[in-house]
Amino acid sequence: MFTLLSADSSTAARRGRLSLAHGEVETPAFMPVGTRGTVKSVHPSELIDPSLDCRIILGNTYHLHLRPGTAVLDTFGGLHEFMRWDRPILTDSGGYQVFSLSKLRKITEEGVRFQSHLDGSPLFLTPESVLETQRSIGSDICMILDECPPFPCERDYAAKSLALTQRWAERARDWITAHRPPGQCYFGIVQGGCYPDLREKAARDLVALDFDGYAIGGLSVGEPVPDMLKAVEIAAPLLPTDKPRYAMGLGQPDQLLELIARGIDMFDCVLPTRVARNGTAYTPEGPIHMKNACWEHDTRPLAPAGETHPLCEGFSRAYLRHLIKNDEILGLRLLTLHNLAFYLHLMKRVRHAIETATFADFKDDFIARYRGGLTKI
Amino acid sequence: MFTLLSADSSTAARRGRLSLAHGEVETPAFMPVGTRGTVKSVHPSELIDPSLDCRIILGNTYHLHLRPGTAVLDTFGGLHEFMRWDRPILTDSGGYQVFSLSKLRKITEEGVRFQSHLDGSPLFLTPESVLETQRSIGSDICMILDECPPFPCERDYAAKSLALTQRWAERARDWITAHRPPGQCYFGIVQGGCYPDLREKAARDLVALDFDGYAIGGLSVGEPVPDMLKAVEIAAPLLPTDKPRYAMGLGQPDQLLELIARGIDMFDCVLPTRVARNGTAYTPEGPIHMKNACWEHDTRPLAPAGETHPLCEGFSRAYLRHLIKNDEILGLRLLTLHNLAFYLHLMKRVRHAIETATFADFKDDFIARYRGGLTKI
Repeated sequence: MFTLLSADSSTAARRGRLSLAHGEVETPAFMPVGTRGTVKSVHPSELIDPSLDCRIILGNTYHLHLRPGTAVLDTFGGLHEFMRWDRPILTDSGGYQVFSLSKLRKITEEGVRFQSHLDGSPLFLTPESVLETQRSIGSDICMILDECPPFPCERDYAAKSLALTQRWAERARDWITAHRPPGQCYFGIVQGGCYPDLREKAARDLVALDFDGYAIGGLSVGEPVPDMLKAVEIAAPLLPTDKPRYAMGLGQPDQLLELIARGIDMFDCVLPTRVARNGTAYTPEGPIHMKNACWEHDTRPLAPAGETHPLCEGFSRAYLRHLIKNDEILGLRLLTLHNLAFYLHLMKRVRHAIETATFADFKDDFIARYRGGLTKI
Repeated sequence: MFTLLSADSSTAARRGRLSLAHGEVETPAFMPVGTRGTVKSVHPSELIDPSLDCRIILGNTYHLHLRPGTAVLDTFGGLHEFMRWDRPILTDSGGYQVFSLSKLRKITEEGVRFQSHLDGSPLFLTPESVLETQRSIGSDICMILDECPPFPCERDYAAKSLALTQRWAERARDWITAHRPPGQCYFGIVQGGCYPDLREKAARDLVALDFDGYAIGGLSVGEPVPDMLKAVEIAAPLLPTDKPRYAMGLGQPDQLLELIARGIDMFDCVLPTRVARNGTAYTPEGPIHMKNACWEHDTRPLAPAGETHPLCEGFSRAYLRHLIKNDEILGLRLLTLHNLAFYLHLMKRVRHAIETATFADFKDDFIARYRGGLTKI
């Protein structure tokens, strides 16, 4: 399901193609986050339109399990028909949300017991149950259950956590062998925290289980960026070159380029859509906040034509500020489309740069111009 | 600026056309409400698209005066350029918001003094100042300042209020004669509460001042629907046939048909957009609430193709329920577009019915099928 089309000569960047049940995805690829069966504020036709040409979105199994629930998804034969999206969907396992959203949780060998963040009702996730839920969702790519240790994390806890994650991966492997529904493929997740030897062991043990692709997880949980990059530098070279590599939950635009240079093919991140709803727009110089008074009389567009979404063209920064300041839905719609265009166009330019053997220069130029720091995940 | 194209033989319904600075408007017409320079959640291109073909929108002078303010509007040469809407705009005078939103207000002969509902800052509206603000907005149709008495209202207060409204109308007339900016026209407002003789006097005195059109105001402020219809029945026949007639702030779909039958040409109402944001969708059988559990597994569309907005086609009631229940922006976007399509298509069918001398039957059929009552303004 993955074809490596070309590899950069001066970095580890790769140009590839995923062939999934619902279509092809050119890599490096960015996946907009559609937590509950909708990329927030965006109509599926806007994602498919050539101005974005989004090939794959991410859904959150935990949220979809709570609402609408598998009974409704089964009525529709899966999330694709329910949300009217006929391109690929990747879903996470729900494990990350258990650790980030749920207050009361108990991890056992069998799985993780916790309370719904919506109504406190008891839930129990196992390596098998999350794959069954993703079968109801009908995801093109399913993620297996892992434990995502916090940062900082004692070495002893990290090692025990990784051992459990590996045993869960083996159970997932068994479930897949027994049940693999047609049209679904499965990614394992490399954990190991910020301990290089654990990351290395995690990658080697996971590869032995022969998944369809490999994610690097447990990143952007509070660790310094150099530690995050280091974890990827250790794990990526140990993953098979003929399988896709996915850095979960990342990241800022400049971080994406650093990760692509280290051999990552796929990304998902709430940033472009979430910060849009708070009034932040990405520009080649870095994120800017549209509520700032400096835009009050600014008649210039947010970006030159062709460097934003077509639906944002014509609107002034003053008008965008007015909309955002007044919590007008059109404002967050426009910034969401602009930021998605920024991320998806960036990936398109990256793919072109790899094809034309100019990626290293492209990355250096982008990073030299880009000033991050305004927004945090 | 108004051409009466035809009149119904069995009711007082009229088919007409407004020729305004920014284009023509076929009447009877419904004006979606764009309070702060945006019809909430809707992109201007969606309003212009033939699926809605919205010819005119309403803006609220009070809100626009506070934000973005006339200094910003002057920078852009008016609201049309600021919000990138090149079709007609009607603005109210701000008087109604003073009475409905402002807690501290003092009405004097000169005008009305009150505090901003946003930050409590002092504001002072006069019959002249509201026209100056609407000059900055660049409205195609400006409304003059009136006092909107509450319901119920003692006869003595209603009479004194009407006399003040009439003196303010005379001052507005003087301002218009002295200043009339090109491309703007001006509507007077018939007040008089639920007192038939005051409504009659209001209409006669206002017509003597020769405005470009006439609104009937002070309706839907809590009075019974028969009283509302009665006020229109008294006022409308006293208004010149060659000028447009506008029922401010109304109403439910079935009420619109009753008002059209009484000779009204123009309407504005927050209902289709506001109730959409609460999860209510209009149907030929009446409004339905999409949060209801009955839709949980319902695979049917909200309405047959052609009876909803194209962007809603394909989505099931179950998916719309899921979106609305989870406060997903796509849900209120879709219901807003659906409800606007419902109102604007209804006006289109009304115009066709008047043209083909079938309006009375059309109205009776619609009302017999329609069950209102779920939503209140």
